Amino acid sequence: MDIHDYAQINPPQRLLMGPGPINADPRVLRAMSSQLVGQYDPAMTHYMNEVMALYRALFRTENRWTMLIDGTSRAGIEAVLVSSIRPGDKVLVPVYGRFGHLLCEIARRCRAEVHIIEVPWGEVFTPDQIEDAIKRVRPRLLLTVQGDTSTTMLQPLEQLGAICKQYGVLFYTDATASFAGNPLETDAWGLDAVSVGMQKCLGGPSGTSPITLSPQMEAVIRRRKCVEAGIRTEAHQDGEDEMIWSNYFDLGMIMDYWGPERLNHHTEATSALFGARECARLILQEGLDNTIARHQLHGEAMLHGIQAMGLEIFGDVKNKMSNVLGVIIPDGINGDRVRKLMLDDFGIEIGTSFGPLHGKVWRIGTMGYNARKDCVMQTLTALEAVLHHLGFRSPQGAALQAAWDRYGNGSH
Amino acid sequence: MDIHDYAQINPPQRLLMGPGPINADPRVLRAMSSQLVGQYDPAMTHYMNEVMALYRALFRTENRWTMLIDGTSRAGIEAVLVSSIRPGDKVLVPVYGRFGHLLCEIARRCRAEVHIIEVPWGEVFTPDQIEDAIKRVRPRLLLTVQGDTSTTMLQPLEQLGAICKQYGVLFYTDATASFAGNPLETDAWGLDAVSVGMQKCLGGPSGTSPITLSPQMEAVIRRRKCVEAGIRTEAHQDGEDEMIWSNYFDLGMIMDYWGPERLNHHTEATSALFGARECARLILQEGLDNTIARHQLHGEAMLHGIQAMGLEIFGDVKNKMSNVLGVIIPDGINGDRVRKLMLDDFGIEIGTSFGPLHGKVWRIGTMGYNARKDCVMQTLTALEAVLHHLGFRSPQGAALQAAWDRYGNGSH
Repeated sequence: MDIHDYAQINPPQRLLMGPGPINADPRVLRAMSSQLVGQYDPAMTHYMNEVMALYRALFRTENRWTMLIDGTSRAGIEAVLVSSIRPGDKVLVPVYGRFGHLLCEIARRCRAEVHIIEVPWGEVFTPDQIEDAIKRVRPRLLLTVQGDTSTTMLQPLEQLGAICKQYGVLFYTDATASFAGNPLETDAWGLDAVSVGMQKCLGGPSGTSPITLSPQMEAVIRRRKCVEAGIRTEAHQDGEDEMIWSNYFDLGMIMDYWGPERLNHHTEATSALFGARECARLILQEGLDNTIARHQLHGEAMLHGIQAMGLEIFGDVKNKMSNVLGVIIPDGINGDRVRKLMLDDFGIEIGTSFGPLHGKVWRIGTMGYNARKDCVMQTLTALEAVLHHLGFRSPQGAALQAAWDRYGNGSH
Repeated sequence: MDIHDYAQINPPQRLLMGPGPINADPRVLRAMSSQLVGQYDPAMTHYMNEVMALYRALFRTENRWTMLIDGTSRAGIEAVLVSSIRPGDKVLVPVYGRFGHLLCEIARRCRAEVHIIEVPWGEVFTPDQIEDAIKRVRPRLLLTVQGDTSTTMLQPLEQLGAICKQYGVLFYTDATASFAGNPLETDAWGLDAVSVGMQKCLGGPSGTSPITLSPQMEAVIRRRKCVEAGIRTEAHQDGEDEMIWSNYFDLGMIMDYWGPERLNHHTEATSALFGARECARLILQEGLDNTIARHQLHGEAMLHGIQAMGLEIFGDVKNKMSNVLGVIIPDGINGDRVRKLMLDDFGIEIGTSFGPLHGKVWRIGTMGYNARKDCVMQTLTALEAVLHHLGFRSPQGAALQAAWDRYGNGSH
């Protein structure tokens, strides 16, 4: 290799309007470029405590254990699952898209006995369907996905906490795709654990995963306590339940690292923490309700624009996440060719789809820093132009007008 | 909470001269502040391929599977161990410090049958000691730590590959603390897997873990292949060995994500990847041998300075890592008071120690961006001043002169 072939990093300018990752807010990138401090520096532990408080506000919870897992959103999922599922435990997973399958997959690797209920892609479950399955399976945990980007659907969770409580079931949701763009009430909805990622509505880069754990979930995890040999002292005592079969994802140890004992575990990914702190700070400055409303506004403007172009929407629109949209690729149009022209000639990325929807549906996101009017208008314009170029006829300017109408300046 | 209490991130200026994390190179932080691109953008996959090539050069290997694990250095360790150790497999761990215990701990959570040999902290193993244990235990894997920051020792690895080959043992090392500051020859030394972290001599922030896997290790992992349900097709076939009991750390899936199939797994932590790319690029521009020599130079200048102050060094100096130094806290001096004065009044962090060395040994690092003359001179000056203030007598200026002597400008 010749090192001179490796230039300074200089990624091309992209407007990321897919299902995530999206462009990070520049203020988050600037926070991440701050110089480091030591992992036990008072400044660092203060920042860690601040991050806990900021994410409590975002998760709408009083949960003490609200913290970051150093890895992508999938790391947060696995940390919760491997720390709470004992081998042989029954779990119930309502699957309505790819990320439900992912929960099954991870639970299986935790040696859970996995029970699945399914609805067709594009639909969600009623509380009754889930309650019936709980009565039948009697799981120890209910594992849900709040927003499955693979189908763009948003599973209503409001009523599930009471059902879980009635049957003594621990209630988890993966809210990576939906968080901060749609309502989520950890405490009011009776959630025992939530994990999310940065690269969607939070407006940061993938790489750290905020989670929150209820006191009940904490107790479950504490019963599996196992302090590692290299740092354990006589004062440390193991729990009565089977140990957690991961060190990196042992939430008991991660609590002891974030808690007052500051017991060494990993070396906190400081830059990612700085980024996560700034994401939360920006949203709370805007006001979480305002952030959610902003996603609603721009998501609807995009939706109306796409519909006005004569394109059809995938799935049940009334159960859609606000921040992402499945667009059925019209007959005679090559979906990948459209995406390539959008990327190459306009610098705009829209998403393809997984599994059964691959080649049939584009996914268009309006989230985080890109939940903005200019992003919506640019994307609609470019898509209309590309589709027109490839022979798909739509009323000229109708998409833009529909979006303008939604923004309330339709008289332009 | 009142969001106005949360100011823009503004960490205090620190010179991090402990055992890591250290100050990130500002050029790395700038690279990390670059805007994102989509995870399958041609620009992104090109950067991923570049990262593979750059780290092949740093690891001194032809191994195809040289890539990043999205997590801290501990994530890299667990990914290698959980992907290679089948439950019940025998592993041998030569333990000479805290991070040897960590390998045991992680291996135990992979349900390995863990066999340990130990030497006192401050020493390392001879090849004969390790060969004898291999003959006795007949392990499937030998798990080593190249440089254990807890003791500052560097385990010689050069001769272990041939021994492992003779007995059919897979050979892994955790080189987090030593990498790029001390020689490591993946291929020449017959290593089957190496994992490292960013926050030591590589000069970046913690958060991603470069690893490399030999073709033999690849084969071991491929035999445990298990494609996740959400993305598997009829063309996918599982392997004949027991599956890997983690999804996030399943190196087979991570290979398929980094390889030409680009099979979706996690969402790559783009900012961390940009940082890792810049760390490697800077070192290869300097020349890896020059980087190692620079660590040798500044490490020795620090060593000579500390010795000239009349302080004693912990452990066997001839087996020390170049980049970190254990300093025995003199009688009558409160080690934590010294560290606090160094931090509060000089903005310089030096390290405490773990376990049996806690309160007895400081650890002083000269690594990555901080393997520089000005860092060495500032640290020595501040330490001399603080110790003098607390009543420890040393010849005035002797430390500085010893360092200057090592730098070859002793006539100043």
